Parts: sequence; C-alpha cells; structure tokens
Amino acid sequence: MNYEEHSKFMKEALKEADKAARMGEVPVGAVIVKDGTVIGRGFNKTETTSLATSHAEIEAISMASEHLGNWRLYGCSMYVTLEPCAMCAGAAVLSRIENLFYGAADPKFGGCESIFEIPTEARLNHRVNVVGGLMAEESSRKLRDFFRDLRNRKNIDNLKDEN
Amino acid sequence: MNYEEHSKFMKEALKEADKAARMGEVPVGAVIVKDGTVIGRGFNKTETTSLATSHAEIEAISMASEHLGNWRLYGCSMYVTLEPCAMCAGAAVLSRIENLFYGAADPKFGGCESIFEIPTEARLNHRVNVVGGLMAEESSRKLRDFFRDLRNRKNIDNLKDEN
Repeated sequence: MNYEEHSKFMKEALKEADKAARMGEVPVGAVIVKDGTVIGRGFNKTETTSLATSHAEIEAISMASEHLGNWRLYGCSMYVTLEPCAMCAGAAVLSRIENLFYGAADPKFGGCESIFEIPTEARLNHRVNVVGGLMAEESSRKLRDFFRDLRNRKNIDNLKDEN
Repeated sequence: MNYEEHSKFMKEALKEADKAARMGEVPVGAVIVKDGTVIGRGFNKTETTSLATSHAEIEAISMASEHLGNWRLYGCSMYVTLEPCAMCAGAAVLSRIENLFYGAADPKFGGCESIFEIPTEARLNHRVNVVGGLMAEESSRKLRDFFRDLRNRKNIDNLKDEN
C-alpha cells in the first residue's frame, strides 16, 4: 500500500476519534483492516463505560475478532490515532496483529516507542511491525482542541460559580 | 495483612484458575479485593470467547469497575496466579490498582519483572506495588498439570489415528 491508502484508513480512525470527542471522551480512534476492508472499529469510551480498559484499540480488536471468529488477527493492520499505551500494545501482540500504524506519539503513556517498545520486543513470541507518525498532526490537533475546550468549559463553570 | 490473609485471596484466584482448566483454557485466575472483600473475579477464557484480551485480570478489572461504578480502582489489590503480561500489567496501571500480588513468574510474557516492569515504571502517572511469588508453586503446578494432560490427550489422539 502507498501513503494515500494508509491515510485513507487513518482517516477512518480519526472519524472514530471524533465520535469519542462528541461523547466528551478523550478523542482517540482505531480501525483494524484485513485485505483492504475495515473489520473492526473503536473509540475511547472509558468515562462512558466506567472502565479503564475501554480504549479504542481494545474495542477494535474485539470487533475484528468477533468478525473473524478467531482471536488470531493474522494479516490484520491496526490504524490508531495515538501511540498505543502498554495495555493496547500488549493486546496487539497477543492478537497477532501484523502491522500497527499510529498518528501522534504519546510521551506520557506510549507503549510502542515513548516509554516501552512492546510490539517489537524480541523476547515475545510475536512481533508487530510499527510505523508511527502517520497523520500525526491531525491526531494531535484533535487532542489539543479537546483539552482546550475542556479548560474553557471549566473556566466558564468557575465564572458561573463566582457570580 | 499478613501472609495468611494474602494466601486466602490467592486461593480464591487459584479457584478461578481451576474454572479455566475445566473449560480447557490455560489455568490462570485473578481476584480483586477492596477492604477485605472480593469485588472482582476472572479466569482466562481466550479460546472460549475467541478473544485474545479475555485474560483473567481483564475480566476481574471489568467486574470490580462495574461493582464500584468507577474505572478508578483506588485502594484495590489484585491477586493473580501468574505474572501479568504487558496488556494486563498496563490495565492494572490504567485502573489505578494499588497492590498486585502474583504467583509464578512468566519468563515468556511477563510484564511485571520478566520482560517488562510496567507496574513500577516511574514515568507513568500511577505505580502499582508489586509482590511476586505468592503461592507460586501451586500456580506453577496447575499450569504444568494442564500442559501435561494436553500432551497426553494429543498422544492418545495420535495413537487413535494410527489404529
């Protein structure tokens, strides 16, 4: 696949991130692709579900596994807008995902390059090919906008409380 | 808590592992305890659910979060029969679990000491206290017995095929 084709799938992941933002969740989205078809989608919904494991990648892996009727996602690529955390990087390895493309790096939680390098660890029984920085600017902008709006809303609430 | 009290909860985790074995799943079990009460339980069921993320710890975290109505498992301890993998160690950090007690170390997948040291990583925003080796022999024995039985069954099947 060329850059344009990869971008097409990352745009699908960014649409998932928008769904999260509309629900007031930190905007992170993911899709899983096999043979050119999206077979799994997910977005972060940890607040809505009251569950710390409801990350976009975990949701997308669940949907893809259900679609295939198999926990082994051989030949599948995951596109996720933000560098997966340790949990999600571990889930990608366990699921035998072949390729992982992500947008922005995550210096605070990143499990693929920033803090840990889980998908490429030689001692594990499966390794995932990792490409970071795909449409990173679009992904970062969504996160920045989300947190700016959150701060603004908090400031307005504080002003209301003072009046 | 003293050793006896910790062992009491690890025995509950071992009971969960037995449930997995009875379903033909690799026997790993976990419980989550708050204020001396078990509020979450789980056992490995990746084959049954066709989902690589159906590890004991993830199931136990889901149940505990549902019980508390909160993804933040403050003041909770997790007891798991085998050293958590990267995914589960990451989930423990994300869920703000306070203490993690595990049985046998897992040199192939372990995310707490064997391959990664995720729960105690200083750069993450939460750290989990980790104690490994609690009733490790009981946990290892269950795994050894399971894989021995699996091999025996395969050998019997092969003999049947030859006759």
